Amino acid sequence: MRIVVLAGGIGGARFLRGLKRAVPDADITVIGNTGDDIHLFGLKVCPDLDTVMYTLGGGINEEQGWGRTDETFHLKEELAAYGVGPEWFGLGDRDFATHIVRTQMLGAGYPLSAVTEALCDRWQPGVKLIPMTDDRVETHVAVTLPGSGSAAGEGERKVIHFQEYWVRLRASVPAEAVVPVGAEQAKPAPGVLEAIAAADVILFPPSNPVVSIGTILAVPGIREAIADAGVPVVGLSPIVGDAPVRGMADKVLAAVGVESTAAAVAEHYGSGLLDGWLVDTVDAGVVERVEADGRIRCRAVPLMMTGPDATAQMAREALALAEEVRGA
Amino acid sequence: MRIVVLAGGIGGARFLRGLKRAVPDADITVIGNTGDDIHLFGLKVCPDLDTVMYTLGGGINEEQGWGRTDETFHLKEELAAYGVGPEWFGLGDRDFATHIVRTQMLGAGYPLSAVTEALCDRWQPGVKLIPMTDDRVETHVAVTLPGSGSAAGEGERKVIHFQEYWVRLRASVPAEAVVPVGAEQAKPAPGVLEAIAAADVILFPPSNPVVSIGTILAVPGIREAIADAGVPVVGLSPIVGDAPVRGMADKVLAAVGVESTAAAVAEHYGSGLLDGWLVDTVDAGVVERVEADGRIRCRAVPLMMTGPDATAQMAREALALAEEVRGA
Repeated sequence: MRIVVLAGGIGGARFLRGLKRAVPDADITVIGNTGDDIHLFGLKVCPDLDTVMYTLGGGINEEQGWGRTDETFHLKEELAAYGVGPEWFGLGDRDFATHIVRTQMLGAGYPLSAVTEALCDRWQPGVKLIPMTDDRVETHVAVTLPGSGSAAGEGERKVIHFQEYWVRLRASVPAEAVVPVGAEQAKPAPGVLEAIAAADVILFPPSNPVVSIGTILAVPGIREAIADAGVPVVGLSPIVGDAPVRGMADKVLAAVGVESTAAAVAEHYGSGLLDGWLVDTVDAGVVERVEADGRIRCRAVPLMMTGPDATAQMAREALALAEEVRGA
Repeated sequence: MRIVVLAGGIGGARFLRGLKRAVPDADITVIGNTGDDIHLFGLKVCPDLDTVMYTLGGGINEEQGWGRTDETFHLKEELAAYGVGPEWFGLGDRDFATHIVRTQMLGAGYPLSAVTEALCDRWQPGVKLIPMTDDRVETHVAVTLPGSGSAAGEGERKVIHFQEYWVRLRASVPAEAVVPVGAEQAKPAPGVLEAIAAADVILFPPSNPVVSIGTILAVPGIREAIADAGVPVVGLSPIVGDAPVRGMADKVLAAVGVESTAAAVAEHYGSGLLDGWLVDTVDAGVVERVEADGRIRCRAVPLMMTGPDATAQMAREALALAEEVRGA
């Protein structure tokens, strides 16, 4: 079975671990979000790709869900002592090595997809991990920072890097717009469209629908290829009981005018794209609404990734729904 | 008192610490060797500048004489896990920060002299540290590697970076030639010639006469400025009892046809440059030879930098000899 999964960071990575457990022999291709990549200290950092790679390769810090296990932060301490920031982005000593190798390879002329493959040679994630594009896409967020404007009481409107919004501000102000800068000009990385065309099933894990899956779908050609693949496309709701399971997805959903409910996210993806949708059992009440136009099948199953078994079971439910769609 | 010191790494740095102790109010300018700079992992590493900066700024690993105190090597471990080398160059996690800041500033267009000044803002070494040049100079060493040639029994002649010779090979094969590549085209960094012209005394610490002091003197204009400064130039022998006090200076002295004796090194610098020369008490027998042509004054004093007091006393002896030269 050939499975294509679109993935962001922590949620996508953990789901993928469950998927591998559920179907160890499946041929899994992961199309990774690169919209939250950032240049720090002259280095190219790809948080989502690394989270997938570290999680599946056994190097992740399990508790926080990102970064390396057994990590130290001496380099970062020293950068701060030099007055060089940002200090709000947590790069550990071990993690730095990944960014140094990546930056050196990019500087030598390798595209990000080739670099990612080389990094995965070490981590052996057990999936084929491809960045959505080799081109530069950077998600920016428009915000109004309170009280910092020139006139009293007025806020200052700013456009900031997604990481600054997410990590530094912790989404503490509303996102007024979310723009994947560069996406319109980007081309899918080599292998992305081919994997989609060859897939037996395509899954959207409970990753952020706007800044993770949404950014991947913003690369011209990817959404169309998925819609045209003619295979079941099944998603898992990242919203459980009207709140994001993890992270602050509600903040960026609001920016694109989507309410934070399992039903609204399904409608946001749309029946032109999605064939099946899993919501949590607490959201069983929305199944009818999602299935209203008769084009998306919806099932309510436990969607909390509380451990490897629960996550594997979610993956099995997604694949079962895909089979149901296929048989219909 | 304005003192200019030409310095390599460990020996120069330790001597400078003694000099500061001996004359705390002196205005000291250090012209640092950059010939053993190396690009590693896409980063610009300046071992001698950093050794001076860390030693005088209180961040040095005292035992080994280079690198940072309280150091860890996680980043390097991870690079090795990625199969990315070289593994023979010991960059620690804290030390990496210096190279990252430097590389980022160089990339932003600052010359090395400005970068060094910015790094010293943090370390406050208590001296003005200037690289000999802002241009790229890289010391290469010609060697014959035994048994690796195509014909049986023949060695392979190779030209390698000084660090590869010094750190990886530990000078285990003879240096057939030592070439400061790029030196002929290099210009002294801003402030170098000005400091020499304004100096009251110029000191050559017991640094390597070939690959440290020799490389600095190979930058066109520096040797001439020192010879023309009209102030006492006093050196301290790095050779005690026919062997280098530290390091493998004999290996590179042989490459330039100089024997490893305190007298031969003085003659190598030459009476056109040197006014005074300190040899260790065990080499008292060579004083007469050094003074033979009547142009270099030579004194035998203890030259082992066994601790801060001994090193400060060496600095006092050097300054006393400078006064003697001046009074003559």
